[in-house]
Formats: sequence, C-alpha cells, structure tokens
Amino acid sequence: MFIGRITGSIVSTHKVDSMVGQTLFVVEPLRVDEKNKDSLKSTGRTFIVVDTVGAGVGEVVLCVQGSSARYTEETKKLPIDAAIIGIVDEVTVHNAQVYDKDGEE
Amino acid sequence: MFIGRITGSIVSTHKVDSMVGQTLFVVEPLRVDEKNKDSLKSTGRTFIVVDTVGAGVGEVVLCVQGSSARYTEETKKLPIDAAIIGIVDEVTVHNAQVYDKDGEE
Amino acid sequence: MFIGRITGSIVSTHKVDSMVGQTLFVVEPLRVDEKNKDSLKSTGRTFIVVDTVGAGVGEVVLCVQGSSARYTEETKKLPIDAAIIGIVDEVTVHNAQVYDKDGEE
Amino acid sequence: MFIGRITGSIVSTHKVDSMVGQTLFVVEPLRVDEKNKDSLKSTGRTFIVVDTVGAGVGEVVLCVQGSSARYTEETKKLPIDAAIIGIVDEVTVHNAQVYDKDGEE
Amino acid sequence: MFIGRITGSIVSTHKVDSMVGQTLFVVEPLRVDEKNKDSLKSTGRTFIVVDTVGAGVGEVVLCVQGSSARYTEETKKLPIDAAIIGIVDEVTVHNAQVYDKDGEE
Repeated sequence: MFIGRITGSIVSTHKVDSMVGQTLFVVEPLRVDEKNKDSLKSTGRTFIVVDTVGAGVGEVVLCVQGSSARYTEETKKLPIDAAIIGIVDEVTVHNAQVYDKDGEE
Repeated sequence: MFIGRITGSIVSTHKVDSMVGQTLFVVEPLRVDEKNKDSLKSTGRTFIVVDTVGAGVGEVVLCVQGSSARYTEETKKLPIDAAIIGIVDEVTVHNAQVYDKDGEE
Repeated sequence: MFIGRITGSIVSTHKVDSMVGQTLFVVEPLRVDEKNKDSLKSTGRTFIVVDTVGAGVGEVVLCVQGSSARYTEETKKLPIDAAIIGIVDEVTVHNAQVYDKDGEE
Repeated sequence: MFIGRITGSIVSTHKVDSMVGQTLFVVEPLRVDEKNKDSLKSTGRTFIVVDTVGAGVGEVVLCVQGSSARYTEETKKLPIDAAIIGIVDEVTVHNAQVYDKDGEE
Repeated sequence: MFIGRITGSIVSTHKVDSMVGQTLFVVEPLRVDEKNKDSLKSTGRTFIVVDTVGAGVGEVVLCVQGSSARYTEETKKLPIDAAIIGIVDEVTVHNAQVYDKDGEE
C-alpha cells in the first residue's frame, strides 16, 4: 500500500453506471525523503482513488492498489484499481514522528 | 486509477477475436505539476486503452488498470489491462480548478 | 495495454511444461515522443511476450499485461504476464499518422 | 518479491473494519548497488506493508505484492497489496554476503 | 515477462509456513541496451524470485510476475509475485545474438 495526501477531486458525470455516487479523490503519494530521513515528500505521481472511509481533502490516507482495491464491501463490484482504506493519524520513521494528523490541525 | 487525455487511436485488423469491434485509444496520462501546483502535465507515458463510455479524441478521461479493467459489462471477457470508465468534466487540485471540460470547448 | 516493436526472440528449452511450444518474443515498448509529438520512440524497457496472433520480428504489436494476458484461448492456463493480442496497422496521434505498417514495408 | 528494511510504522484508527488489528509497517525496499556490487542500497520508494510473521522495526524482510499478498491465512480477506512473508537472515550477491542479520545485532 | 540474471540468494528461516522449502534467488533484470543495441544490460532493479525449474546462480532466466507467478504446479498456493519459469539458452535482438548460454560456459 501507499500513503498519500488528498489534494483535490474530479467530477465525471458521464461514466460507467457502477461508478455513479463514488467519491473520486486526487491523491498525491508520499515517501520518506532520502536526504532528510525524518520527513515525507511527494513522489510526483498522481492517482485517482475511490474513498471508502469518508476522508476529506487535505487528509493523509492509506491507499491500496490493484485487485485488492475491490476487497471492501463498498468496492467489490467496481472497476477500480485504487481505494482509500484508512485515514492516517501518525507516521513514525527512523524513530521520528514525520506526520501527526492532530499536529496539523 | 489515472486521468489522461485521448490523443489518438490505433488500428489493428489482425487481432484476437474477442477484441474485434473495440475502440483502441492512445491515452497520455496526466499528473499534478509539482512546480506549478495548479496545473496538470503529461507523465510522458503512453497507454492503449479500450473505451467503454463513448469518449472521443481530445477528451480527458478516467482510466482503470489491471484486472479491474475487466469489471464492466463490455469488458468482462476481454484480454485488456486498461479501460476508460468515465469522461472527466472537472479536476480541482489545491483549491484551484486545473481542468474544466466546458472551459476547453 | 502498450504498443511495442518485436525486436527479437529468446530460446528456453528448460522451462515449465505448460510453456513448451510458446513463441517468446523480445518486445520494446513505444511511446509518444514528448518533444516531437508526432513520432513514437522506445521507452527503453524490454519485455518478453508470448505471441497469440502469429506476429513476426520487426512488427509493431498490441500487448496486454498482468492477469489479462491469460484471457485468450491460447494463454488461459499459462504462467504469463504479457501477451501479444494484435498486430498494429496504424497509429494516429495529434492528428498525425505516426506509424503505418504498409508504409514501412 | 522484494526485500526491504522496516523503518517505521503508521497509525490509522479510522479504517475499514477488516483492517482493524493489522500492524502497518513502513518498508523501504533495497536493491543491489550497481556501483558497489556487494552492497544493498535503498530504492528511494516507500511502501506500507502488513506484517504476517511478527517482524520488528529495523529488520530486513521479504515482501510480496499484488493479489498474492492475500495468499496467507492472516491476509486472505484483507484489502491489501503488500505483505511481509519472511524475516531475512542473510543475502548473498556476487558471492559476497551483503546482509547478515546476526552481524547487525 | 522479463529475463534476468540470478546473482545470488536470500535465506529466511522465519517465514510463512507455505514458503518453507522454496529457493529464493536474487534476480537482476536485463534489458536491451538502447545505445549498444546488440547487448543486454542490467535495469538496476532487484527482485526476489522463487525457482520452479532448478536454475542456478549465474544463469539467465525467464521470470513471470504478478498473479501469473502462481500458475505453475509448484507455486499455485504460494504468496509469491515472481517465479522463474525457464532457463534462457539464447537471446537474439536486432538480428544479433546478444546472449548465448553455451558461449558463457
């Protein structure tokens, strides 16, 4: 899986029927910064991800890709390859807290 | 999933039977521009994608990859790993509208 | 899916039984050249792909990856993650014909 | 599969029910250093991986990706695309031991 | 699929039960050298791959990835995403033999 920040959303009114009603977020994945080991940085990639936990723009989320994105009740019949399965509270790397949801609010 | 612009198409008359009649578009994926956060730019990659929603060249579309590309009525038996599942009307990133279908027309 | 040029082949006599008799081509994927928008260029990657349509070295072909490579009669039981599913006649991008099989012969 | 070092963990209290109780480690994949052939180096990527063998931060682990991450008793119903399936004791490359768990302790 | 050279192996005594007894090789994938078209070069990546054909360190092998790695008798129940399915005898690219197993011995 990957963690990423929800930075926006897309609107698609003309889509396959099964996707009607799904929230489609723009998620920019994060990775550990090789230089500054105790911080996260964007990977530069952009994914469109279906939300299954009621997340919101600005939040850091846990995303699953591939066929496993269909392994939740809400997504099991959907033509999707990426889903949000959790809202991230905290990330600790190299004994340092590199992300803290409460700290950001 | 990813969003991308349909920039062309391919013709393949000699192909597996199940693919006869399928529209095969050239799609160039888009991502958020790290420098100019409120615009989209091409990733430099090129995918061939089957259309399931009647999209057209020039449009920005929502694409799904992998086994999930087979999770629509039209594609469930096809040997495909990428399908268009929606036409994108609008993309909002970092509180800015970075794409607006009507604005382009 | 991706399009690529068959640039060679491999021989493997000591292999899993189910793969006996399969043609194994070397395929170099192609993408739209960002600078010179109406031409194709190699991505620099190299795939080994099973042929299902009787293609030949030098031809540009349509390839599918992942589990979908098993979604043809010939490949459904094979341990493969890439298959040729069509021979490409023509590629049009940005209103320009960037590949024409007949033009090359 | 890939080998990587567990460098931290994430906390996600608001997540899909099936993920409750799962340990979510931050794993940084390792690869053979092209220049210094007998050492491993980070690939620069960051994965979030579910643990199935009781590994701990600092250990080098064997990880599987994709649908196969669901092929263990603990993970078969989970929406995950990466799982730890082993703790690595030793890595030998080009006849040199490039990692030795006991040597690090 | 990809071809790669087995350059080493890993030892993991503490692993999921189903993986006990599996040989875990370090494989460095090869690709056609864009500059010197009739030679192969390492991609710089490193995979851990289960062997199903009795290959050995130093050999160039044919590897399959993803769910298809489970499509052999030996691997169908294993949590793996990469398997060796053949030992490569010969690779011909751009009408030149770029690898010959016998030539190396």
